[in-house]
Amino acid sequence: MAYRLYYWPGIQGRGEFVRLALEEAGAEYVDVAREADGEAELEAFLEQTGIRHPPFAPPFLADGDLVIGQTAAILWHLGERHGLAPRDESEKLWVHQLQLTIADLVSEAHDAHHPLGAHLYYEEQQAEARKRAKAFRSQRIPRFLNWFERILSVGRNGWLAGDNLTYADLSLFQAFEGLRYAFPKAMRAASAGTPRVDALARKVAARSRIRAYLESERRLPFSTEGIFRHYPELDLQS
Amino acid sequence: MAYRLYYWPGIQGRGEFVRLALEEAGAEYVDVAREADGEAELEAFLEQTGIRHPPFAPPFLADGDLVIGQTAAILWHLGERHGLAPRDESEKLWVHQLQLTIADLVSEAHDAHHPLGAHLYYEEQQAEARKRAKAFRSQRIPRFLNWFERILSVGRNGWLAGDNLTYADLSLFQAFEGLRYAFPKAMRAASAGTPRVDALARKVAARSRIRAYLESERRLPFSTEGIFRHYPELDLQS
Repeated sequence: MAYRLYYWPGIQGRGEFVRLALEEAGAEYVDVAREADGEAELEAFLEQTGIRHPPFAPPFLADGDLVIGQTAAILWHLGERHGLAPRDESEKLWVHQLQLTIADLVSEAHDAHHPLGAHLYYEEQQAEARKRAKAFRSQRIPRFLNWFERILSVGRNGWLAGDNLTYADLSLFQAFEGLRYAFPKAMRAASAGTPRVDALARKVAARSRIRAYLESERRLPFSTEGIFRHYPELDLQS
Repeated sequence: MAYRLYYWPGIQGRGEFVRLALEEAGAEYVDVAREADGEAELEAFLEQTGIRHPPFAPPFLADGDLVIGQTAAILWHLGERHGLAPRDESEKLWVHQLQLTIADLVSEAHDAHHPLGAHLYYEEQQAEARKRAKAFRSQRIPRFLNWFERILSVGRNGWLAGDNLTYADLSLFQAFEGLRYAFPKAMRAASAGTPRVDALARKVAARSRIRAYLESERRLPFSTEGIFRHYPELDLQS
């Protein structure tokens, strides 16, 4: 049975980390909210009472009767089923740890343009966003990139964990692309010293299923509606 | 061999979620940074190069040669080893999903007093913190509490998942206590409608090992150095 992915339509958002795993796996899935009436179905699902495992927020994935929320938990599940995670328990936990750190980076990327919270428009918190984005660009992005670079410099084959691609590699690709879209100038400076991260992103993009996906209409563009947003005033000024 | 927990000394922080699991399990552990020279050892560990699984940030746990970072990943590991998680795969993933949602709540509780980032003191972002804390109090806390209440209303025995306590119950206890310390007025209002969450926290606190821990010197107090901070100006004004 095809998976059913529930995520807000119109943006890549956190749903994209799940989409990339589904696409790399060649798995059949319905992107529910992008179908006719799909957004209403998503909202109805969130309101449903009496279910044992209600998701807190999108994305969530239905695999038959099993409903899983939280991006990292969804990827744990898909990783097991589609060979996108190692079999060894401790290596599996390591890949998950990588994913959780990418999730932290993604949250911080969001807060760079929404430091006061998601209840206000960007335009209502632009001054605060400039302050937060500056720290994110100058301190946090380099810290994350250098950590991934360090891991890649110890490993083999250019993947984060072991000899094969895992869902964490797909997620790092997505985070890296998102940061490059949002902060092109800052990322040129920051990623000059992290060639292995750059090479990983290129390797992911070149995989046949991922390349086909990126070229398809299923791949939504980055935009200032998503998590990674390009506002020139938040990027490095030169 | 005793576990070695690495976390900043002096605060509960994210380390506390790990401590509660270790204490409930009756596991032997060294709280490394609270030993003599322990903080230097923690910092040296983070700087270490050439290790295959370097942690990004505290807390991290050494179980013999295995080093695990990210609170939720550490709890996954401890849950397996000490019966603090279900054995069934899909229930295990559900408990993890609960934990990841608690992690989101904890991050938001931190950002309520540090919306511009951890690089500035609270006093340097007090005006912004007032705005963010207001939305956190009035929108986010009720949303999280109501979600947990809804789950508890479907379950049995007053635990979040299945018939037995899991690490997610311990973590919800800690988050709930932290919120009550930080926002006593807002929490009186918000938790009036979530009696099952309140009952869960009392059940956790009454467990023999947890009670002994809470009364011991190993339990650090909540403070305005930690993640949950009581600043009266950020609480509900009445």
